[in-house]
Amino acid sequence: MSKFWSPEVRELTPYVPGEQPRERLIKLNTNENPYPPAPGVGAVLRDFPSDHLRRYPDPESRALREALAAEFGVEVGQVFVGNGSDEVLALAFQAFFRQAAALQMPAITYSFYPVYCRLYDIERQALPLAADWSVDLAAFAPSAGGVVFANPNAPTGHGHDRAAIATLLERITESVVLIDEAYVDFGGESAVPLVERFPNLLVTGTFSKSRSLAGLRLGYAVGSRELIEGLERVKDSFNSYPVDSLASAVAIASLADEEHFAACRERVITTREQTRSALERLGFEVLPSQANFLLVRHPDQDAAQLFVGLRERGVLVRHFNTEALRDHLRISIGTDDEMESLIETLTLLCQAPT
Amino acid sequence: MSKFWSPEVRELTPYVPGEQPRERLIKLNTNENPYPPAPGVGAVLRDFPSDHLRRYPDPESRALREALAAEFGVEVGQVFVGNGSDEVLALAFQAFFRQAAALQMPAITYSFYPVYCRLYDIERQALPLAADWSVDLAAFAPSAGGVVFANPNAPTGHGHDRAAIATLLERITESVVLIDEAYVDFGGESAVPLVERFPNLLVTGTFSKSRSLAGLRLGYAVGSRELIEGLERVKDSFNSYPVDSLASAVAIASLADEEHFAACRERVITTREQTRSALERLGFEVLPSQANFLLVRHPDQDAAQLFVGLRERGVLVRHFNTEALRDHLRISIGTDDEMESLIETLTLLCQAPT
Repeated sequence: MSKFWSPEVRELTPYVPGEQPRERLIKLNTNENPYPPAPGVGAVLRDFPSDHLRRYPDPESRALREALAAEFGVEVGQVFVGNGSDEVLALAFQAFFRQAAALQMPAITYSFYPVYCRLYDIERQALPLAADWSVDLAAFAPSAGGVVFANPNAPTGHGHDRAAIATLLERITESVVLIDEAYVDFGGESAVPLVERFPNLLVTGTFSKSRSLAGLRLGYAVGSRELIEGLERVKDSFNSYPVDSLASAVAIASLADEEHFAACRERVITTREQTRSALERLGFEVLPSQANFLLVRHPDQDAAQLFVGLRERGVLVRHFNTEALRDHLRISIGTDDEMESLIETLTLLCQAPT
Repeated sequence: MSKFWSPEVRELTPYVPGEQPRERLIKLNTNENPYPPAPGVGAVLRDFPSDHLRRYPDPESRALREALAAEFGVEVGQVFVGNGSDEVLALAFQAFFRQAAALQMPAITYSFYPVYCRLYDIERQALPLAADWSVDLAAFAPSAGGVVFANPNAPTGHGHDRAAIATLLERITESVVLIDEAYVDFGGESAVPLVERFPNLLVTGTFSKSRSLAGLRLGYAVGSRELIEGLERVKDSFNSYPVDSLASAVAIASLADEEHFAACRERVITTREQTRSALERLGFEVLPSQANFLLVRHPDQDAAQLFVGLRERGVLVRHFNTEALRDHLRISIGTDDEMESLIETLTLLCQAPT
């Protein structure tokens, strides 16, 4: 605490990202992709003229936005890009959710959302999940405050289909509905085709998960022109050039390789379902997942102890020490070999006398 | 204007960066470096394993902060890094200047500062420059609101020496003094050695100008641990990983090449002084500059017309259409060839019948 800080800064509770360990571990804690980015990415890096870096990037990131617009079948003016989808989300909270009414979100969802609320002094209304741990869409009420959730949701992995999202948007028309699709490529159904019908729908996405580019920091939003213009106003009051020239070139190369993208995604999905079966054989309860992770609990094992036991044996997963989640572990999907090591280690830990 | 925007967003007046033209022009409008980044930068790009990008970066950017700490002779805990110094400045405004008292700044300085004030609802007190267009340090009063200015200042190029800054800091002890040293390497004197003595001093810098890496988006701040911790709190409530893995590796390679850095800097300074003489021979009044640009006016020529005439002939400079600056042009320092073309074109324009 320092007398030099702005008063609000003293009240902040920053987000805590998953650990990036220095030692070699089987790293299943931050939902990174186990497969490399598209081969074209390596070629971009090898061929990028370093002299090009002395120039500022295009402040409008036109080339990258054009590539994304083509990918999604929308106009360039319906696409926004930023330094990771965390930045895009932060700017969206500032642009749309500083309203007189509270922002509605599920009680369990991406844990950065409440952090943004504190940063921007946004009142938050947390709504319980349904009995099956899905986001309870019927619980969201029409209001001026807006709605945000991840779909598929984090860290549960449950996803609603496009028809369910459309039904929600038919009810909530007076404020922004932000759907965070960080994990949609692993089996979810994207709401992007709905942006033409619903001017209050903003969909965010990232290159970090399904495109294996977490290290690059590239996120985007798709929505109506008026929502994208709101994001641009905030961005141009914060940082004119959030996306650097290299990141832009790499992201364009990733978008160009549909085949590699689809192949990696399929492998992750196959491994996820194999891992589910293996975990269930060990007695774990495994929530259905459309994401590249599984949320699991064991009726007879303490999750925090499993976390420690795994880590001691070189496997890092994620444990959230909150009331709602402390019985669970979130396990990212790695390669088949990595998941085999996980299962072997869990077999050992579950069999050990407690 | 959209009903979905937060009320404050409707009031924003975004920053307008210098144009990034698509056609080939002699580009002297955004203070980019005419020389390439260190040769080691190209090697980093060629050798960077693209598979590495599937992992998140280190959220603490430890390796880069260690390199900067070694460069400045401070501890790692006294260094903060961000996605361009614009982001670092924005986070600093939020962290330190949302106070009950107004933030003091010169009436003429980097034009992004008033934009941050509107974004974060910070009251601003603008103080006139001294008669010689230097920042009037004696005009800043001790207050809880803080002080910000660029040193050397933009777009004037005037810089105060370290002793003058120390005198200011002996008076202003109760709030943060932010000194933006984006241009310091072209002849200014850095205030970084004062951070040990003054816990309220924050110095920001960038890789965009003297290190020829504007396209990379890399900025930093150096200050006391308590100020850096305040910045980290805001950053960790906004974006956990603002600096991507590639940018970090490239920046470290740049810092490793002191010789290339010094050589490019010297060439820019030499060209600046030759350009000054040539402009003065054409009748321009040229402010003394410690930066990689010159602020000039001609007693008999309209600056806006000169801007247009230069642009029509393929030379792009910066004209600010504000009351205080509309008689001036800001000219970035390019290569000797580029400055020769500028002078030839200006000679033509100044001789033409008006």
